[in-house]
Parts: sequence; structure tokens; C-alpha cells
Amino acid sequence: MKISIERGALLRAVAQAQSVVERRNTIPILANVLIEAEGDAVRFRATDLDIEVVDRAPATVERAGGTTVSAVTFHEIVRKLPDGALVTLADDAATGRLSVSAGRSHFTLATLPKEDFPVMASSEYTANFAAPAPVLRRLFDKSRFAISTEETRYYLNGVYMHVAEGEEGPALRCVATDGHRLARIDAPLPAGAEEMPGVIVPRKTVGELRKLLDDDDTEIAVSVSETKVRFATPDITLTSKVIDGTFPDYARVIPQNNTRRLEVDATDFARAVDRVATVSSERSRAVKMTMEDDRLILSVNAPDAGAAEDELPVAYQDERLEIGFNAKYLQEIAGQVDRENAVFLFNTSGDPTLMREGDDTSAIYVVMPMRV
Amino acid sequence: MKISIERGALLRAVAQAQSVVERRNTIPILANVLIEAEGDAVRFRATDLDIEVVDRAPATVERAGGTTVSAVTFHEIVRKLPDGALVTLADDAATGRLSVSAGRSHFTLATLPKEDFPVMASSEYTANFAAPAPVLRRLFDKSRFAISTEETRYYLNGVYMHVAEGEEGPALRCVATDGHRLARIDAPLPAGAEEMPGVIVPRKTVGELRKLLDDDDTEIAVSVSETKVRFATPDITLTSKVIDGTFPDYARVIPQNNTRRLEVDATDFARAVDRVATVSSERSRAVKMTMEDDRLILSVNAPDAGAAEDELPVAYQDERLEIGFNAKYLQEIAGQVDRENAVFLFNTSGDPTLMREGDDTSAIYVVMPMRV
Repeated sequence: MKISIERGALLRAVAQAQSVVERRNTIPILANVLIEAEGDAVRFRATDLDIEVVDRAPATVERAGGTTVSAVTFHEIVRKLPDGALVTLADDAATGRLSVSAGRSHFTLATLPKEDFPVMASSEYTANFAAPAPVLRRLFDKSRFAISTEETRYYLNGVYMHVAEGEEGPALRCVATDGHRLARIDAPLPAGAEEMPGVIVPRKTVGELRKLLDDDDTEIAVSVSETKVRFATPDITLTSKVIDGTFPDYARVIPQNNTRRLEVDATDFARAVDRVATVSSERSRAVKMTMEDDRLILSVNAPDAGAAEDELPVAYQDERLEIGFNAKYLQEIAGQVDRENAVFLFNTSGDPTLMREGDDTSAIYVVMPMRV
Repeated sequence: MKISIERGALLRAVAQAQSVVERRNTIPILANVLIEAEGDAVRFRATDLDIEVVDRAPATVERAGGTTVSAVTFHEIVRKLPDGALVTLADDAATGRLSVSAGRSHFTLATLPKEDFPVMASSEYTANFAAPAPVLRRLFDKSRFAISTEETRYYLNGVYMHVAEGEEGPALRCVATDGHRLARIDAPLPAGAEEMPGVIVPRKTVGELRKLLDDDDTEIAVSVSETKVRFATPDITLTSKVIDGTFPDYARVIPQNNTRRLEVDATDFARAVDRVATVSSERSRAVKMTMEDDRLILSVNAPDAGAAEDELPVAYQDERLEIGFNAKYLQEIAGQVDRENAVFLFNTSGDPTLMREGDDTSAIYVVMPMRV
């Protein structure tokens, strides 16, 4: 293999690939990135055996071929080369080294044979559809905060992406929950997604996917099978195993008959929660909400440290209600509200509470109360 | 005590005080800040028993008095209050609480009696002088990187500030070393500093002092005794014990007869060192410098990972020389060079090397070589 490639294009491709590589590896080849040159392009492939990312970049290929080098070292080197430099990669079969050259900088890196690199088995996908990047971004950004980190409940360690009957027709739906709070986000069902099996997309995959979704104009090709999911742009293909488990029947925990309605400016609310939470100790950060006559009082009482109270003008016309929540959960769901006011729907102080943005039912959040 | 104070002024004063407070404290009162109101000002005092900072801010004092509250919690609360708010502080002797109010936000904080707060004993200072903030900033900024972190060599855990005979006359001199590298920075001796005893200013004090030196127009009042040092602006007074030990005779390790002269662009040099260091393992990051005929070759050879080489155009006319250094040390001293080229003066590959900025002898650095 011998190729020349512009440093910027090389850095972009390698950055995406290396982020999949786990820093602590017992299998040496998994620390490496597979570089393959052919035609007028070079591909960088990295995997942790659960996720595989393949990144394609245009290059001048003088001699086709491939090898593998340490993803972290290679990325660091490319990052530190001057912007605009032309980088030459050439492998030397005799010494088993890859040489990396740019201007007066020369590196030789240890390699491992490309034959040892584990390439993920290809899959039969049962559904293929396209979705604009902003649509997927909203689905995952608004749900991922609720992913559980408890490893024993592994089936909650991801976002459940599936087809559902939304309030405005068939929907592509993402749901995440950790048992304390839940997020349910809908988007209109893309053509071709009707037969998609429901899959639990693991937390790390959601994080890697997020990097593909920054450009508003990108169309993402999505493929789904019972065991795998694939997201692809013209240059990057991200393939991931899905979590082998059954996502719980979340519909049961979404309250249907909460009638006490509170409407509040989401930003003011999040700031006030943050302020009152300051006095309480880290662990049991319970914030009490007291509502009556268009007034909301947020309060925290920490016997050792002190007490805090904040008042907000709100729209609330029902009878007086006191209810407590974990401060972090309140802030996180209030942080999801983009444009409109946050609308809370309560039942009693012991029941799950619903939150949504204005009257938009395509993104709803459920949070369990705490005794205060 | 009852006072009103603008939130911005309060935040500045409390931020400086709370940063002295150690996060892990076994003595509860040391986690607190002492608030004292009198006349038309409020003072915030914090200490870790080695350093004391007193911060003064203008305030409307309705009732004079004082109390102490958790520095971290109080700072967090003030930080989260809206900008421009008027904050009222009032202590209630009956409940032993301090109330903090701003608009519709109310906090009550647990207090400890102000009588329990340890106030640092006052001292007879043997020298008092004034120095512009930029002068002190240069003295400490350019030397602090070389402070040792080895606790067994406690007398190296600070910057040795003393009076010395510099190359351009009497100097206020700061020296720091960890045995592997040394920095020696001179400034013209301010009037009144002639009789100053040499003191070792501890690392933490250097860090806290640094926050007083950002404003170019500030004149710092410096007071020094055998056991203490004090730095004061009109609003902030930082008093610190000095390290009770003898700083070694550093003059012996500064080479006098290094004649082989290398001149190199400091930024290019630091970047090239950073690049070649990428391939070597974290611990023994030795970089070899090879000089000959106006060329400098930087190289690293890490048998496992690979090798790297970078070439820089330099001014070097002496006979060929190969010498190795710790990559981090090279980068750090090159990072001290502000405007001019870095000038290295070598003897042999086994001797300490001198570095300075151009021909300016008011800041010199010594670094020990490594075998490569």
C-alpha cells in the first residue's frame, strides 16, 4: 500500500474510527485501525466487536493494499501534523512497518497483519429506510439522557427504537428509561420502515451515531435486523449489534389521566431548580414543588446545611399540590424543552408525572416523584 | 449583621476566598468563610491554616457583625443567582442561620460562630515593597512549572524568591527546580526590597497569588518576613506561611561554560517535540536532538511502537552533537519563550544544558540530559 491524502480529510476519517476503539484492550488487534487502499479512496475500519465503523476518504492510491496500526497513536500523529499537509502512507512488508510522512516529519509505526483484523459478519437487514439527520438527532438527543447505567438491567442500557402508533399516525419511536424517568420521542414513520423490528440501540452506539448527525443536510441510510442496526452516510458506515433483550412494556407507566396542569418557562424552571438544589447534599437531592394560584414554590430542606426556596410565576389553576422530585431528573427533562414552555401534568403527589413541550405530544417525559 | 451587596461584587470576593478552602477538611470551621460587615464594606476571610485570604467588597451595611458559612455552598449559591441581582445577607442569632435573599430566591444556611474562626497571627515584616502585577506575573509564571512535586524534598515544593546579584544589577529573583530542570527569573529589585530575607513560596500560594496578578495596572504590595509573605491589592490580601527549609545552592548547577550554541524558533521546536514524542510510551519519553550544519533532527525510537523523526532549520555551527532529553521538559521550557527564538547552550551530551530567550539573561532554564 502507498497513498497520499490531505491531512484534513485523513484526520476526519481517523478521528471517527479511533473513537470506537476501547482504550483498555486485552486483544492487541482491537487497538488497531485497519487501513485499506483501493481505487481512488482509502478506508479506515475500527471495531470493539460490538460496533464497527468504516470511514472512507478520497486519496491518491499509488499502490493498493492494507495494514493495521495503533488507532490512538496514528490519530495523535495525524492530529499533530500541520494543517494542509499532504500525508504519505506506505507499508513495508519486509519490516512490517507503516511509514507516515508529511514534509520533514517521518514516522514508522508497528503494524499487525490485516488478515487478523476482525471484520463484522454481514447481515440480512429486514428494513431499509432513509431519515434526515435532524430527525434522528432529535429522536436520540431527547431520549438518551434517560438510558439506564445499571448493568444488571442490561435491556435498559440503550434506546428502544421501534415502530409505534403515535398520536398523529404511524411513528418511528425512541424510548429510554432507567425506571425513575422515561423519555418517549416520535417522528413520522419513514417509508420502508414499516416492517422494522424493534431494537435496543446500545448507549455507546448512540454516542457514536451522534457524531454522524451534525450536518443538517445529511440523509442517513438506516438498516435494521433482529440483531444489528446500521447507520450510513456516503462516507461513514456505523454497524452495531443491538442489545439482546426485551424492552419492558413502557406504555403501562405513561400516565393517561393526569389532569392537574402546570405551565412554566423551561429555562427559568431549570435555573431555579439548580439554585435551590445547591443547599442539599449530593445524594438525596429532593426538590419540593408547591403549586397554588399561578405560583410555583421550589424548596429544599437539608437539616444540616440549610434551606432554599425560589418562587416562579406559572400557569396553575388546580387545587394546591405538593410533590417532590430528584433535582437532577427535573433539570434534565426541563433541559429537553427547546422552544415552548414546559407543561407538567400531575395526578397525586405519589403518582408518576408527565412533562411535555407545550402541547406537542411527539416528545413526552415521565418522572417518578420522591417522598419529601 | 445585615447587608446588601451587588451580586457581581459579591461573586468576585467570594470566588477568591473559597478557592483557598481545602475540599477535604476534618476541621469543620476550615470549610467556612468568615463574613464580617462594618462601615461601608464587607470582608470575606478564608484559610487552610497555611494561607489566608481576605477579600473586601463595598456593601450597604444596615447592621454590622459577622458569621461563618460553608464557603463552597455560599459560592455556589452566589454563582447561580441572576447577574445584576441585589443580594441581602442577614444573620439570625436565635436560629444560628444566615439568610441569603435575592429577588424571589431565599436561602438559609447553617453557620458556625465567628469566634471559632482561626485568624492568622499578624507578623512583623522585615521588608515591604511594591511591584507591578506584570512583573510578579512574569517571575512566577516562568518559574512555577519547575516546582518539585516530591513531598520528601519539601524545600523544593515552592518558588525561592530572594534578592540576588543579577547580570544587570541587583535583582528580585525567583528560582524553582525539581532536580531535573531549573528556572531562574530576574526582575529589577524594587525599592524597599533590599533587606528581604529569601523565602520559599509554596506551590499553592503561587497558584492563589496568580489570581491577583491578571490586571496589568494593579500595583501589588509585598511584605516578607522569615516565616511569612503577604501580597495585597487594594481589595485582596493574601498571607501565606513560607516553607521552613533551606533552598539548595542552585548557582552550582547553572553551567557557565556551555559554548555550543543552537538557536531555533521556539514554537516550531515545541510542536516538533510534541509530534515525535507521540510514538513513544508514556513513561520514558526521551527525545534525541542531533545537530549539525544548521540542521536539527529530533528523533524518538520506541522499539515496540515505532519511530519518529522531524527536521528543523536552525542556527548551529559547532561540531555534530547528539543529546537526549525528556520530551515534557523540552516542551515546557520551549513554552516559556514569549517573543524571541530559543537559544540552547550545550557542553557535552552528558552535561546540563542551558536555555534562554534570545540573548536575554533575565530568564534562564537548565535541563539535565537523558541517555538515549
